[in-house]
This record gives sequence, C-alpha cells and structure tokens, in this order.
Amino acid sequence: MDVVKRTRLSPEERRAQLIDLGVRMLAERPLEQISVEDIADEAGVSRGLLFHYFASKHDFHVAIVRHTSADMLARTAPNPDLAPIEILRDAMASYVDYVSENRDTYVSLLRGTASGDPAMREVFEATRAEMARRVIDQLPMLEIAPDPRIALSVRGWIAFVEEATITWLRAPEISRDELIELLVTALPAVALTPDTAASLLR
Amino acid sequence: MDVVKRTRLSPEERRAQLIDLGVRMLAERPLEQISVEDIADEAGVSRGLLFHYFASKHDFHVAIVRHTSADMLARTAPNPDLAPIEILRDAMASYVDYVSENRDTYVSLLRGTASGDPAMREVFEATRAEMARRVIDQLPMLEIAPDPRIALSVRGWIAFVEEATITWLRAPEISRDELIELLVTALPAVALTPDTAASLLR
Repeated sequence: MDVVKRTRLSPEERRAQLIDLGVRMLAERPLEQISVEDIADEAGVSRGLLFHYFASKHDFHVAIVRHTSADMLARTAPNPDLAPIEILRDAMASYVDYVSENRDTYVSLLRGTASGDPAMREVFEATRAEMARRVIDQLPMLEIAPDPRIALSVRGWIAFVEEATITWLRAPEISRDELIELLVTALPAVALTPDTAASLLR
Repeated sequence: MDVVKRTRLSPEERRAQLIDLGVRMLAERPLEQISVEDIADEAGVSRGLLFHYFASKHDFHVAIVRHTSADMLARTAPNPDLAPIEILRDAMASYVDYVSENRDTYVSLLRGTASGDPAMREVFEATRAEMARRVIDQLPMLEIAPDPRIALSVRGWIAFVEEATITWLRAPEISRDELIELLVTALPAVALTPDTAASLLR
C-alpha cells in the first residue's frame, strides 16, 4: 500500500480517505488489529487529527464496518430492468461474488469478535433489514401480499443466505453457480406456497 | 432463590450445583452480569472454592452456556418412534417451547455479547453441528443420499430456524403452531427437490 502524501483535503474527503484506508487494511487483517497509529501513518496525518474525525478507535472501526456494509448493499442493488426472480438471481450472484472477493473480511466481521459488539450488530441488523426490505418490495409485482409469516420467512432466509455462504466460503464443496441457485430457490421455497414457488421458478 | 445450605458434596456434585445456580441466574440477567461472588454466596462456598472448579469467570460462563446448550439438545432429541417428518415436527415443537420458556436467556446468548466470544461460539457451533447431524441422520430412512448441497442447505436451515425464532420471540405476530409449521416445512423446501418435499409433507 502506498503512503499517501500529506495533501489538503476537505474534512469530508479526509474522513472518506481514512475510512477507505481502514477498509483496505480490513482485507488484510481482522478489525481488532487495525490500529489508529497505522492508519494515521498511512494517511500521513497525526493520531490527534484521526481522533478529530472519530471519537475513538471503536468509532473508527464502526465507520469501517458501516462503509463495508453500504458497499455490499450497493453491489447487490436490485436491477429494476429484470423480472423479480431474475432480480433475485442477479443480486445473489453479485452477493456471492462480492463476499468471495472480500472473503476474510466478510467471515471475520460476521463470525468474529465484532459480531458480539452492540454497535457492529446494529450495522449488521440494518443491513439485513435493508436486504429484507428489498425482497418484500418485490412482492406486489408478483401479486403476493406481504404478511407476518412471509416477513418472518424472509428474515430467516437472510440468515440462511449468510450461513450457507460462510460455510461455502470456508469449504466450497459445490460450485459458485450451484450456491447461487441454492440461495435463489430457497427464498420462494420458504416464503411462498409450493405452487406459487414452482410457478415463479419455472 | 433459596440460599443453598453448606453441605458436603462430591466434587462432581459441587460443580454441577454451581453450574445449575449459574443457569438459574441466567434466566434473570445477561451472562456478563453473573458474578462469581453472587454464585459463591448462593452456593454457600468461598470465591476461592469456585475458582477451584472453574479457572476463571469466563470459564464458568462457558460452562453455563455449555450446560444450557446440552439441555436444549436433550429437550429436542429425536423421538425414534415417529416417522421422519413427525420427528422433525416434534423436535421443532420442543425447540420453540424450550426457547419460549428461556426466552431472555436464548436471545441474549445468541444475539448478545457472548455471540462474539470465541469459546462461546465454539459451543454454539457444536450445538448447531449436532442439530445438523440429527437431520442428516434421518435422510437414509427417506431414501435420500446426503450430498454437499443438502449438507449446506441443512446448515443454512439451522440459521433460518434460529433467526426466525428469535424474531418471533421479540415480536410474536404469528401463533406458536404457525411458527412450528414454518420451521418444519422450510427444511424439505430448501434441502430437497420440490417433488420430494411435497411427497414428504403430504
């Protein structure tokens, strides 16, 4: 990683630069091992300036995680030009590719120490809620009225996707395409009646 | 809670008594708030004796969690007198009732600080692996050969069960029976082909 030259940046740019450095470091080591000193050195700023942008190391770590989650959500955004089941397939393919590219980061965030931290959990929960909302938003196009049973199934399906994907990243015993198909077909299978699910996947 | 009289117990009995007190306290407060002093007081033993059985407070907490997990597994053990789909339904009913009775404990263990602790995670992972093994063990009776895709689906389904159940415990918008049916039907739906799933549930 190149040492960034000391340059005049606006506060927003500087903040973004520091988070970006943190995100890049996260690809190489767990969150717990990202120190404020290392980031300040890389950015060519003082520790004091870093604490001007982030109240604590923990706050900085939360900002990194928030950025990573937003990035994943952006990469998996629904493509409105596709049919609902294709939107889902496209989003799952982007998701599997994104987490494959960021494998260590993804596994260590969701299954490491961070997973027990209240502020991190809040970011993960908000991310899951957004993923659930995207699914629920598609239902009217399929002439399916959302109800509490479907909402619960969608929440459960998101946990299914995370767990199956993390297990697969650790020991990929099926192909990428088979995993994507597994994740895609699981959603109508758990959320809809067998007939509706079958007609959707046909 | 009654103060337990100072009595002569064998080391195994004493250890079991201390864990049992911990488990009972866990119903009332999060793990982090269970202090060694409180347990020693309740048991009528010295702090020193407690540390004779558990090397640290953390070790004691892990022993409590291990006991709780074993208890849940015992309560949801497969009943071999039933048909496979009924074994599943019976196990899910026991599971939903068990976690309903131990609601705060269950939610705080799986979604609180403990969830990020490596030793706790190991206990949860072993519990999930045992739940998965029980499912996989039923497959030959259904003339289904386990394969990596099914194994991955079963892992994902266990995460589905946990997430749907925790969401339901926090906001029970469907009935207990509807939740059980949701958990039961989700397993063949994600793990098997639609035809096999349908014939199993018929």
